[in-house]
Amino acid sequence: MKKIINKPENYVNEMLEGLYIAHPDLITYTADDVRCLVTANKKEGKVGIATGGGSGHLPLFLGYVGLGMLDGCSVGDVFQSPSAEQMLAVTKEIDSGSGVLYIYGNYNGDIFNFDMAAEMADFEEGIRVESVVAGEDVASAGPASPNEKNTRRGVAGIIFVYKCAGAAADAMLDLDEVKRIAQKAAENVRTMGVALSPCIVPRVGKPGFEIGEDEMEIGMGIHGETGIRRGKLEPADQIVTEMLDKIVADIPYVSGDEVAVLVNGLGSTPLDEQYIVTRKIDQYLKEKGIKVHRYYVGEYATAIEMAGFSISLLKLDDELKKYLEAPARTPFFTQV
Amino acid sequence: MKKIINKPENYVNEMLEGLYIAHPDLITYTADDVRCLVTANKKEGKVGIATGGGSGHLPLFLGYVGLGMLDGCSVGDVFQSPSAEQMLAVTKEIDSGSGVLYIYGNYNGDIFNFDMAAEMADFEEGIRVESVVAGEDVASAGPASPNEKNTRRGVAGIIFVYKCAGAAADAMLDLDEVKRIAQKAAENVRTMGVALSPCIVPRVGKPGFEIGEDEMEIGMGIHGETGIRRGKLEPADQIVTEMLDKIVADIPYVSGDEVAVLVNGLGSTPLDEQYIVTRKIDQYLKEKGIKVHRYYVGEYATAIEMAGFSISLLKLDDELKKYLEAPARTPFFTQV
Repeated sequence: MKKIINKPENYVNEMLEGLYIAHPDLITYTADDVRCLVTANKKEGKVGIATGGGSGHLPLFLGYVGLGMLDGCSVGDVFQSPSAEQMLAVTKEIDSGSGVLYIYGNYNGDIFNFDMAAEMADFEEGIRVESVVAGEDVASAGPASPNEKNTRRGVAGIIFVYKCAGAAADAMLDLDEVKRIAQKAAENVRTMGVALSPCIVPRVGKPGFEIGEDEMEIGMGIHGETGIRRGKLEPADQIVTEMLDKIVADIPYVSGDEVAVLVNGLGSTPLDEQYIVTRKIDQYLKEKGIKVHRYYVGEYATAIEMAGFSISLLKLDDELKKYLEAPARTPFFTQV
Repeated sequence: MKKIINKPENYVNEMLEGLYIAHPDLITYTADDVRCLVTANKKEGKVGIATGGGSGHLPLFLGYVGLGMLDGCSVGDVFQSPSAEQMLAVTKEIDSGSGVLYIYGNYNGDIFNFDMAAEMADFEEGIRVESVVAGEDVASAGPASPNEKNTRRGVAGIIFVYKCAGAAADAMLDLDEVKRIAQKAAENVRTMGVALSPCIVPRVGKPGFEIGEDEMEIGMGIHGETGIRRGKLEPADQIVTEMLDKIVADIPYVSGDEVAVLVNGLGSTPLDEQYIVTRKIDQYLKEKGIKVHRYYVGEYATAIEMAGFSISLLKLDDELKKYLEAPARTPFFTQV
C-alpha cells in the first residue's frame, strides 16, 4: 500500500486542487476554502442540497456535486468530519431562498457539526435547513433502543438518497417535498459490505487494522469499523449469499418487490470481481422473486485502498423510480 | 491480493455474465459465445468498429462498446488474445455493408489474430476490414528499425483512438475516413506509466513479479512488462515530472499545443492520488505553454489490482477535438 502523494498533510488539499482543475465546468469552491465545494451551476429558486464528510471515500462525498444531484459538499480531513463553519459557508452559498437540505451519513462527528451548522444557518442567516441522516449498514443495526435511534452507519447506499433527492430538487419541488423523498429513499435502502484488506490513512502511515492473508471480515465499515464476522475467505457466490441473506431479511425485501442494486468496490477490488458478484446477486434475487430495475456497478464509495465490496438494495416505488431515472451529471456520476 | 472469485477458470465468463446482466440496454453477444461482445444498438449503414484483447484490464477493452464508440469486442482469457474466430464472429455481426475498422493494441498475439480475422472476413464473408494498431507507450519505444515498425505497446491512450474513431463512425463517415481519423489519434497520443505493486492472474495464483515495499518501476507495462527504471518510491510531483519529461519530448509536444490528458489508475491506486497527480500535470504543462483542453481522470485501463497510474497526452487539432467532444454512452464511458 504505497502511496503516490507528496506530504501527507497536503493530501486532501492537493487532491481538491486536482479536482477543480479537472472539472471546472461542474464544481468550484466558496469562502476562499477549497474544502467548501459547491456547484458551478447554481439554479435560482431551487432547494439546495448539501452533504459533507471525511475524505478518503472518493467518489463519496464530493463527487456527486453537479447537475441533478448535490449543490455543495464540505470536505474534512481523511476520515474526519468537516467543521460546522465550513458546512455553514457551503449552506450560504447554495441557498437561493428555498432552503437547504443536508444529507449525510450517520456518524457522530458529522451529526454534531451539521446540527450546529443548521442552527447557525437559521439564527445567523435566516436560512431554513432540514436534515436527512443516511444510515443503512445492516451490519451495524443495533438492538432497538427506547427512542428507536438508528444505529446504522451510512455507507454506499447514500448515493441513492442523493440521486432521488437531487432529482426532486431539480424538478423544483419545495424543501418539505425534497426532504420527504430523501427520507423515503433513506428508509428503503440497505447495505452490507465485506473487507479483505485494510487501508492506510496517509498521516498515520500504517494500516488501521490487521487481517490474515486468507481472511475476510463480513460487515466491516468504511473506516474499518468492526463487522459481524471474521473468517476464512470464501468463494464469491458464498459471500454474496451470506450478505444478501442479511440485507433481504432486514427491511425485509419480499417477493414482488422491485429494487435498484448498487455493487460498490471499496478501493482495490477489480471491476471484474464486482461483475462476478453482480452475476450471483442476480441469481439470488431471481430466486427470491425480487425484480431488479437497474444495476449500478463500480466504485461509488471507497475506503482509500481497502479491498472488498458492498451491496446496496433500494426498494423502489413509482416515485423513487422516476427520480432515480432522471438525468444527472457530476464529476463521478453521469446518467442520461 | 485476495480475490472475490469462484473457480479461477470461470473468472472471465462469470465476469461477462455479470456485465450482460448489468448493461442489457447497451451490450449483448453473438455466436452463442459470451466472449463475442457486440453493441445492442446496431446502427445500419455505419462503419463498424471492433476491438479485442485479453481480460484483466477493465474497463478496457469491452467497456467501450456502446453508443458513439465501439460496436464489438472479442474477449480473451486474462492477458491472452481472443481467437481469430471470435474476432470474425464479432466482425460479421457488426458489419452492415460499410466495412469494419479494427482498433487494437500493439501486442503480437492480437496482431496475429486480428490479421487472420481480417483475411477471413474478406475472403469468406466479403467484408472489407481495415486496421489501426495503437502503440503509444513511450517506455517501450525501441530504436527506429529499418522498416520503422512501431515497437510501442498499446496502453490506456487507446481510449482516445476509440473515442475519436467512434464519433467519426457515428457521424456516418466512410471506412477510409474513420480509419484516417483513428490513425491520426493514434499517432498523436503518448503514454507512460508507473507501477508500485504487481497483480495476480487468477489462474496463476501468484504475483507476476516482485517489487520492494519502497520501490516503484517507471514505464512498466500493463502486463508487468519491464519498464525503464526501477528505484525508490518518490513524491508524486517528482514521479509526474519524470514521466512528463519523457512523454513531452517524444512527439514532441511543444508550447502552443493543445492536448487532452488522461490520468489512468492501474487498479488499486485511489482516485485521491490520481487527482494529486492531475494537479502536478497541470502545473507542468502550464510551465511548458501546453494548453489542456480537457482532463479525464479515473480507471480507464487497468492491470487487475496493480497499484500505479499512467498519463496519456493526445495532441488535438480542430478535427480531433470535435470527435473527442461528441457524446457517447457505454457501460464505462458516458459523455454528454
